[in-house]
Amino acid sequence: MENKITMDKIVNLCKSRGFVFPGSEIYGGFANTWDFGPVGVELKNNVKRAWWKRFVQEDPNTYGVDCSILMNPKVWEASGHVASFGDPKMDCKKCKQRFRADTIVENHSKGSVSAEAMSDQQLEDYIKEHHICCPHCGGFDWTPIRKFNPMFITSRGTLEAEADKVYLRPETCQGEYVNFLNVQRSSRAKVPFAIAQIGKSFRNEITPGNFLFRTIEFEQMELQMFCKDEDSMSIYNNYKERAWEFVEALGLKRENLRFHDHDKLAHYAKAACDIQFNFPIGWQELNGIHHRGVWDLSRHQEFSGKSMLYTDPFTNEKFLPNVIEYSIGADRLTLALLCQAYDEESLENGESRVVMHFHPFIAPYKVAVLPLQKNLSDKAKEIYSKLSKEFMCDYDEAGSIGKRYRRQDEIGTPFAVTIDFETLENNTVTLRDRDTMEQIRLSIDELIPYISERVKFN
Amino acid sequence: MENKITMDKIVNLCKSRGFVFPGSEIYGGFANTWDFGPVGVELKNNVKRAWWKRFVQEDPNTYGVDCSILMNPKVWEASGHVASFGDPKMDCKKCKQRFRADTIVENHSKGSVSAEAMSDQQLEDYIKEHHICCPHCGGFDWTPIRKFNPMFITSRGTLEAEADKVYLRPETCQGEYVNFLNVQRSSRAKVPFAIAQIGKSFRNEITPGNFLFRTIEFEQMELQMFCKDEDSMSIYNNYKERAWEFVEALGLKRENLRFHDHDKLAHYAKAACDIQFNFPIGWQELNGIHHRGVWDLSRHQEFSGKSMLYTDPFTNEKFLPNVIEYSIGADRLTLALLCQAYDEESLENGESRVVMHFHPFIAPYKVAVLPLQKNLSDKAKEIYSKLSKEFMCDYDEAGSIGKRYRRQDEIGTPFAVTIDFETLENNTVTLRDRDTMEQIRLSIDELIPYISERVKFN
Repeated sequence: MENKITMDKIVNLCKSRGFVFPGSEIYGGFANTWDFGPVGVELKNNVKRAWWKRFVQEDPNTYGVDCSILMNPKVWEASGHVASFGDPKMDCKKCKQRFRADTIVENHSKGSVSAEAMSDQQLEDYIKEHHICCPHCGGFDWTPIRKFNPMFITSRGTLEAEADKVYLRPETCQGEYVNFLNVQRSSRAKVPFAIAQIGKSFRNEITPGNFLFRTIEFEQMELQMFCKDEDSMSIYNNYKERAWEFVEALGLKRENLRFHDHDKLAHYAKAACDIQFNFPIGWQELNGIHHRGVWDLSRHQEFSGKSMLYTDPFTNEKFLPNVIEYSIGADRLTLALLCQAYDEESLENGESRVVMHFHPFIAPYKVAVLPLQKNLSDKAKEIYSKLSKEFMCDYDEAGSIGKRYRRQDEIGTPFAVTIDFETLENNTVTLRDRDTMEQIRLSIDELIPYISERVKFN
Repeated sequence: MENKITMDKIVNLCKSRGFVFPGSEIYGGFANTWDFGPVGVELKNNVKRAWWKRFVQEDPNTYGVDCSILMNPKVWEASGHVASFGDPKMDCKKCKQRFRADTIVENHSKGSVSAEAMSDQQLEDYIKEHHICCPHCGGFDWTPIRKFNPMFITSRGTLEAEADKVYLRPETCQGEYVNFLNVQRSSRAKVPFAIAQIGKSFRNEITPGNFLFRTIEFEQMELQMFCKDEDSMSIYNNYKERAWEFVEALGLKRENLRFHDHDKLAHYAKAACDIQFNFPIGWQELNGIHHRGVWDLSRHQEFSGKSMLYTDPFTNEKFLPNVIEYSIGADRLTLALLCQAYDEESLENGESRVVMHFHPFIAPYKVAVLPLQKNLSDKAKEIYSKLSKEFMCDYDEAGSIGKRYRRQDEIGTPFAVTIDFETLENNTVTLRDRDTMEQIRLSIDELIPYISERVKFN
C-alpha cells in the first residue's frame, strides 16, 4: 500500500464520514463493538449483496437460508462447542487483565512463531523463556493457561427450569447442518449442492482492538457444500478459486492476497486453507475454505437420533455427504475493502485529495446530485427524485463545488451529477467520474441507463 | 379472506415449499424459533429491501444505520428497560407452566376486554371472577402476577468482573438515539431528519405459538424522526399515511387494514397508534407509529452525561428534538404478506391450484426457467445463466410442465419461461404469467427488459 495506510487513518475517516462509529460511544463505548453509520451500512449491505449474488443467485446448486441466532442447546453439544471450544487464556495477576496466550506469543515473535500449532504447555514455556511481560501493566506474573468457552451464555428462563443454558451462536453454519434435509427435500436438491447463509455470530473473545478485524459480534457469509466423498477434493479446490475470484472482482488487488494452507488440521478435517489479505496490521486471514469430511452431519445424526442420510435418486444408495465449507466475514471483508480503496492523491494543481476507489457496485452512494448554485435546487431535487428510485443517491448543496466533490471522493461515490444553468435550458448535466475526475455532458434521460451499466457486479 | 385461510395451511405450505422451517427441528425445535428456507429468505430479504428503498433510499432526509445487538448496559438503564420493562406473568402451580395474565384475559374475553389497560390487580380479579383455568392442564391454582424482565441477559465475562450483565437488545431504536449526534454531524443533517435501521431484537417472552407473529428473536424495520416540537404532530400524521401506503403498495388489501389508536399512552408519549392487519388469528398489530416527545434523548443525556442538544444552524438555538417513531416487524409483515398472497383457485378444467399472489418485487424468484423436455436442457441452462445475472431464478426440469407450473405458483414466481423446440429455431420462448396463466411468445433478448420493468417497486 503506497500511501502508508494506517488503521488510524481508516478509523478516523470512518468516523468523520459516517462509515463506522464506536458502539455505545456516548457511554464510553462497549467491548469493541462498532455501529455502521449512514455510509457504512450501504457499503456493508452492498458487500453482502455481492456475495449473495455471486454464490447464491448465480449458482443453480446453492440454496439460501436465514436461521435463528438462538438454537436448541443440544446443537452446541453435537458441534463440540460446549465441551472443547476455547482459546488459551492467561490472566496477569498484577493488573487482572486477561489475554490470549497465543496472541501474546505471536505478537512477541512478530509472527515468526506459529502459535496456533503450539500446545498450552509449549505456549507457557515460550512465555517464560522469553520473559514476555503483560502488555497492559508490564508485570510478569501470569496464571497458568486456562480455556474459557467463548460462547455467550444466556437463559430462556420462562419455564420453571430457569437454569437452562442457551447460547448465542458462535458460528452460523450449524443452521445449514440441522436444516440439511429440510432444504434438500423442499428444494428437491441433488448432491453436490450447497446451503448458504449470511448472519450474525457472537464470540466472547478478547479482542485485540483492530477495528472491524475481530469483534465480539460479527457477520458471517458462508456456505456448506454437501457432496460425495470422491468429488470432495475437486470441489474444495474449486471453492479456493471462486473465493479468490470473488474478492479480486470486488477490488482487492492480487498483490495483497495470498493462500495460506493450514499446517494443523482438526482431527476430522481433510484439508483447510485461508485466503489472507495484507491489512495495515499485516497479513491476516480474510476467509477460510475447509474440507470437514462427514463430521458435522454424523455428529448431528448421533446427538439428535435422526437420520441425516442422503438418498441418491439414481442408485438409491444412502450415505452421509462430505461437507466443504467456504466462509468469509462480512465485517472483515468490508475492512479489507476500505483499506484497499483508500488513496491519498496529489493533484496537478498542487492540492491533494483522499479518495475511496470502491468498486461501483459496493460504493455506498452511486451518484451525488449537486446543484451548482442554490437557485438550481428545484431542478436538482427533481433529478434526485428520479435517480433515487433506482440508486442510493446523495444530495448536497452546501459549500463550493470543489469541496462537494472532495466529500463525495471521501465516501467513494463513483459519479457526481452537477446541475447548472445550461440544465434549465436543454436538460443536460455534467457527470463527473470519481477516479479520472473527468466530466462529460449528458442529457438527464441518459443518466439512469449510463449509471446502471457502470455499477453492475458481473 | 375468501378461502378460509388458516394458520395451519400457511405453516404447512411454508414448510413443504421451503419458506420457513421450525428452528432446530431435528432436536424437537426450540422455543418458537423459525428458520427461513431457500424461498423464505428471498421473500424476507425482498420485504426488507422494499422498506429500505421506500424509507431510506428515496428519502433525502433519512439516514440508515446498522448497530450492534450488544450495547453498553447503561443504555438499558437509560431506556428504562432494566427497571420497568416486563409483562405480567402467572404460573400454574399444578403444571408449572407460565403465562401472560393479559393474554389469558384477552383470550378468555375474546377481545371484548382491553387487558392492556388493566392493572395487575384488575387482571387477577378478572381471572378469579371468571374462574379462568390453565390453558395447559385445566387447573385453577395460580400464583400472583409477577413481572419478569423479558430482556435476555448474558455476560461479557472476559475480565475479572465476570458478573457484569450484558443484554440482548429488546429493541433496535436505542442504536439511533445513542448515535443521534454521530449521524447528524457526519451527515450534516438538519431537523427534521430520520435515522433508520433494520436489525434483530430479542425478547424472552412467552410466545403464544402463532408462527412468525410473535417470536423470541425477531427483526425490526424502524426509523426515528427527530424534529421540532411544533412540527411533530404533522410528521406523526404523515408517517401514519406513509406507513399505510407502504403496506398497501406491497400487496396488503385495504379491507384487511385498519388504524388502531392507543387508549393507554406511556407517560412521556403524546400520541400512538398501530396499523392492524386481519391475520387468520384476527386483527393484530402490524406496525406502530409513536410520538415519543423528548423522552429518549433526555434520558440518554441524563444517563451518559453527554449533551444531546441539537443546534439549529440558522438560529443557533440549542434544543432536544422530539422523536416520532415508525416501526414494523419484518417477520410479522412477511407473515401478513404470506396470508394475503395465499389463494386456492378453481380452474376451468375442473382442477385447482394454490397460488401465492405476491407483489413481483417481493416474490422469492422472479422467473422460472423450464425446458419442455430434458434434451432442451443445454439451451435452458444458457438462458438461466443469462437471467440469473439479473434476477433470482429457479430452474426445474423434473416432471410434467403442468406440475412445474403448479410448483412455481405455490412459491409465487411471477413469470415462467418455457424452452421448446421452436426456441432452438428462432430464439423465442413462451413466458407465462402467474396470475392470469396467459402465455406470450418473446425473443430471448426481450426477457430481461420485459421482466425488469414488471418486478419494480415504485
